[in-house]
Amino acid sequence: MLDKRVVQQLQEVVGSQNVLTGKMDMLSYSYDATADMPRQLPDVVVLPTTGEMVQQVVAIARTNGLAIYPRGAGSNLSGGTIPLRKGIVLSFQRMNKILEIDPANLTATVQPGVVIGDLNAAIAPYGLIYPPDPGTVATATMGGSSAENSGGLRGLKYGVTKNYIMGMEIVLASGAKVRFGGKTVKNVTAYDFTTLFIGSEGTLGITTELTCKLIPAPKYRRAMMGVFKTLEDAGNAVAGIIAAQVIPATLEIMDNMTIRTVEAFANIGLPVEAKALLLCEVDGMSQELVNTEAEAVIAVLGRNNCATKAANNDAERDQLWAARRNALPALASLNNTCIVEDATVPRSRITEMLVACEAIAAKYGVTIGTFGHAGDGNLHPTILFDKYDEAMTAQVHLAVDEIFATALELGGTLSGEHGIGMAKMKYLSDELGQSGLDLMRTMKEALDPDYLLNPGKMVPLPAVLA
Amino acid sequence: MLDKRVVQQLQEVVGSQNVLTGKMDMLSYSYDATADMPRQLPDVVVLPTTGEMVQQVVAIARTNGLAIYPRGAGSNLSGGTIPLRKGIVLSFQRMNKILEIDPANLTATVQPGVVIGDLNAAIAPYGLIYPPDPGTVATATMGGSSAENSGGLRGLKYGVTKNYIMGMEIVLASGAKVRFGGKTVKNVTAYDFTTLFIGSEGTLGITTELTCKLIPAPKYRRAMMGVFKTLEDAGNAVAGIIAAQVIPATLEIMDNMTIRTVEAFANIGLPVEAKALLLCEVDGMSQELVNTEAEAVIAVLGRNNCATKAANNDAERDQLWAARRNALPALASLNNTCIVEDATVPRSRITEMLVACEAIAAKYGVTIGTFGHAGDGNLHPTILFDKYDEAMTAQVHLAVDEIFATALELGGTLSGEHGIGMAKMKYLSDELGQSGLDLMRTMKEALDPDYLLNPGKMVPLPAVLA
Repeated sequence: MLDKRVVQQLQEVVGSQNVLTGKMDMLSYSYDATADMPRQLPDVVVLPTTGEMVQQVVAIARTNGLAIYPRGAGSNLSGGTIPLRKGIVLSFQRMNKILEIDPANLTATVQPGVVIGDLNAAIAPYGLIYPPDPGTVATATMGGSSAENSGGLRGLKYGVTKNYIMGMEIVLASGAKVRFGGKTVKNVTAYDFTTLFIGSEGTLGITTELTCKLIPAPKYRRAMMGVFKTLEDAGNAVAGIIAAQVIPATLEIMDNMTIRTVEAFANIGLPVEAKALLLCEVDGMSQELVNTEAEAVIAVLGRNNCATKAANNDAERDQLWAARRNALPALASLNNTCIVEDATVPRSRITEMLVACEAIAAKYGVTIGTFGHAGDGNLHPTILFDKYDEAMTAQVHLAVDEIFATALELGGTLSGEHGIGMAKMKYLSDELGQSGLDLMRTMKEALDPDYLLNPGKMVPLPAVLA
Repeated sequence: MLDKRVVQQLQEVVGSQNVLTGKMDMLSYSYDATADMPRQLPDVVVLPTTGEMVQQVVAIARTNGLAIYPRGAGSNLSGGTIPLRKGIVLSFQRMNKILEIDPANLTATVQPGVVIGDLNAAIAPYGLIYPPDPGTVATATMGGSSAENSGGLRGLKYGVTKNYIMGMEIVLASGAKVRFGGKTVKNVTAYDFTTLFIGSEGTLGITTELTCKLIPAPKYRRAMMGVFKTLEDAGNAVAGIIAAQVIPATLEIMDNMTIRTVEAFANIGLPVEAKALLLCEVDGMSQELVNTEAEAVIAVLGRNNCATKAANNDAERDQLWAARRNALPALASLNNTCIVEDATVPRSRITEMLVACEAIAAKYGVTIGTFGHAGDGNLHPTILFDKYDEAMTAQVHLAVDEIFATALELGGTLSGEHGIGMAKMKYLSDELGQSGLDLMRTMKEALDPDYLLNPGKMVPLPAVLA
């Protein structure tokens, strides 16, 4: 329990209605969406509504040597928001105002607690979209998805969160508030701190305001599906689409395990004997261009030994997408625990990665269904297991180790969009080497020498603090 | 003159043919493309060909307390490469190999000395382009333009350098070599250092390899010009084009001073009484979409009281672009010194900025022609003067001060694409405030505590070193 005096100070800063200390109130802040992680009840949850309040909360935390755990919706998938040590969970749920929509400059300025889907709803009347679309778009916040540099289905064509954040206000561990970037597409004044803070999982600074880039909503789209007898054909089709200079809005793949599981779960008529499905959608501002691209994709599919279905209207499109929409719910229904990994490889190595995932599942006798974003090489090997079965859990951990080793061997990366958090710290040196880890620690200690901000995530705690 | 022993060590590392010590050989490394800057002859110029050599040169510099000045083509416009203090100019002119073109993953991996134009020539056979296009594309290097985060004419639609660098190898001031990012569109392993090093003007680390994103080359384009009687009409047309949800590849503006000067210089039939010209080009993968967008632009121009010319073929297009191409050469011919500024404002404030530039020219009795990238609010007020006339030069400096103050008042930034270097350090606190300056110094000292890397640029030297 926290010192009563500290709780009082926090109440004076944010108002007593914005400080939670009851166990039941704090329960949902003790975990996030990551499976297979420890839970930890916070000492206190503080819900500020302004950047100035955040500065004052940081000052109180500093004085009292308390850790701070910034938190959006807690929908992240690498244990990034769990309050491991004594300290304050800083929830942005009530700091959720859209401060400005500026259609002339194609920007929006928001507080970090704004839900991505709410921003998109607010800008829709202007014919604009904010493209990053993690699966959790209906709950995830702008601040949280910025801290995680969230990706989603449209990464290949539209990029990820970091490609859309133009300006930020950050409260540092020192309590100082800095602003950088803004509404101009071009800005080379000062060092550009955007990508340093984006994806830093709240370990380097606390985001209190974001200015993001908007784009005109694409007006037309067409979806199609290819059903493959081999993984190689599917991989060749992905390569062929890019070689045809079509950059689809989405290009998703599902392996046989996922196809069978979805079909058993949802009965939507998927071919359970298929080795892979590709789901592709092209979009744009011109019906003619969208049609041209759709035909080019269908031609590529046709050259790669697959049965093709193309949607002719929105209802048919939704039917095709039902397969992908059901992938995670279907797989997750197979057992009590579901680890969704996001090992990522260069697009050209996607077949090898899928083949490896099947081999790893067989080798360790574990259940793995793999689906994901073929266009950007970002796969989700999804491992289903019984966490109460120790032997099975041990095999799962070996399988996960080998999945990451394989991704690195293929020139890929440990995490495409889920982040490091607590879940992947142990693999970091395999990808970054000692000099990369050292650089991370240099950054951490330059900005947060006392490890107040989300300690124990991304950068291992130094022995003296651990 | 440098200690002979040090020169010998450098020769052993890079080969004696790659070490320059003669005054005539080093002369062209004593300045860059920035007007109104001091010149300083280097103590030695070293031309490495590998990242390992760079590491060893850094080690020699550290041991001997010598500064290092990384340098591409020296085409930058803010004094960023001038070797102010005793030390080594590290030129990347001979470290200029294209290491890989990977059309399947839409990437290229290059050494930093590769000229941007050479990369584009090499990838053209694949139907791909590297979009960033600073005016100096024929000479500027990938490493230099990355260090400056160069922009260019296509920023609005295609973004700037930072949007195309996916992976980097960096040699730090400590001598350590780090790699981060790579060929995957998505990568959230570790902190993302890309934008921190991009645009840091060689003050935080030395880039020794770059992996960049390529895109399919647009197949069609159409250019058109609007001739306006008022700056307000031109500004409204810019706003109208964006409101019509057309994002042109280029959207350039020229003021009356520039129009008159170009016409006197090149005799291409420009209307010298016009208050502003807008030059617009739309491009894309579909003739139909390009035509639709061109017609939308022409309709917007028509609603804003201007005479419109549209190019119907490449020859007519080149004729339209001749106006813009001649802007800087024409203005530069007016006097012996030409400062090209790059004050940048949100797109919606462009008219106010142009009006202010005219007023500032009148107030201080100096010659200013303004042109630039209206689409992204990135203007080039270009000041022509006689540097041997002290009174005039003093007035010019006052005018420049006021141009930057105005850009900041309008919600803009000191530099859109030219960088800070030595030229704009004195204005930094006006934009960043003390907390922003402190954060820059924190970064500089975390990565380069001894101020070995390009000292005296971007971050003022501390008193003890100055």
